[in-house]
Amino acid sequence: MQDHKFSDIEIAAVYRAIEERRDMRHFLPLPVAPEILTKILQAAHHAPSVGLMQPWRFIRISDLNMRKSIHKLVDEERIKTAHAIGEYENTARMAEFSRLKVEGILDCGELFVVALCDKREQHIFGRRTLPEMDLASVSCAIQNMWLAARAEGLGMGWVSIFDPIELAKLLNMPNDAKPIAVLCLGHVSSFYKEPMLVETGWAIEKPLSEMVMENTWQKL
Amino acid sequence: MQDHKFSDIEIAAVYRAIEERRDMRHFLPLPVAPEILTKILQAAHHAPSVGLMQPWRFIRISDLNMRKSIHKLVDEERIKTAHAIGEYENTARMAEFSRLKVEGILDCGELFVVALCDKREQHIFGRRTLPEMDLASVSCAIQNMWLAARAEGLGMGWVSIFDPIELAKLLNMPNDAKPIAVLCLGHVSSFYKEPMLVETGWAIEKPLSEMVMENTWQKL
Repeated sequence: MQDHKFSDIEIAAVYRAIEERRDMRHFLPLPVAPEILTKILQAAHHAPSVGLMQPWRFIRISDLNMRKSIHKLVDEERIKTAHAIGEYENTARMAEFSRLKVEGILDCGELFVVALCDKREQHIFGRRTLPEMDLASVSCAIQNMWLAARAEGLGMGWVSIFDPIELAKLLNMPNDAKPIAVLCLGHVSSFYKEPMLVETGWAIEKPLSEMVMENTWQKL
Repeated sequence: MQDHKFSDIEIAAVYRAIEERRDMRHFLPLPVAPEILTKILQAAHHAPSVGLMQPWRFIRISDLNMRKSIHKLVDEERIKTAHAIGEYENTARMAEFSRLKVEGILDCGELFVVALCDKREQHIFGRRTLPEMDLASVSCAIQNMWLAARAEGLGMGWVSIFDPIELAKLLNMPNDAKPIAVLCLGHVSSFYKEPMLVETGWAIEKPLSEMVMENTWQKL
């Protein structure tokens, strides 16, 4: 049998990117080199997609006023989310959420909105019973970007705190396209050692052993 | 500014995994070493998740009869998908789909069903307006598995051709959990040079340039 394994140093590098990638919200206001940006977008574009539909669309936000408008939309939803957490949990938890930094939109070197493309209903392969596989494909593309960025020494954060209808309107999207991510990308002074939501005490990570079952669903 | 970049050989390894990863359907019936399997699952578990909810659950299918039952479910949906493609497109396209190998469930060394966990409505952070971010998180986890597997010389295929309600029943899942992937993982004789759907002529890949816009939606 032919061995398709990477070399030990290559294998270690792939695991290192996976382990050291963080969802970043703190950025340095420095530009990203265009050739690195292209490599990261190309990495996204190498993602798998259901039936090869390639449903990802990337809108680069280079206009400062548009960046500010997106920040405003996110901040409006941040306040609504805080209230929803207050109602579902309690006011202490709402206050805790309100103290968290949830995005770095105004600071990051590059800002992208990622969307599901229009005319997705044409794609039936792998989606007849699970139409949401388009989102799965775009998510794989974003994970590729995250890992490529980490290897390049850049941080990235996926913000999903926005009203997708309002953001679609702002960017003049067709009715059947849908924004699913505001991506902050750029230089950082340091990467969080643990996920920021663990470092801040917002959440506790559960171990892998609570996620794996055998042959049937088990209450773990 | 501190440089957080990986070394050149490490950066190249991350891009190599991203570029050489393939959605595999052809497997060799050989076992996967348990310690490698654990590393790949741990890679999945290192994925980002919205509000740190860690919504991924992995059901390892070690029972041969269960594997056969899952294969049967997938094959039933494969036929329904073929008919749907026939109706939406034409009978030639239906025949073309029917000739494609869409899964390697009975051959692969390891089979997993991946599901969204139950009780997800408790998690509001990043999901008030986009509840589907749970699927986005699990997809990032699966992309991590795919890349780790490729580095380890193993192939993986994501099958989404099944009725999620039937598969949930088969695996005795709670009503609010949902299977979103049947993952075939294992040794392969070779990796496709291009995505299999390109090699077989099912689909043509579009270039990155058709996916990137600036500041507003553009018809590309």
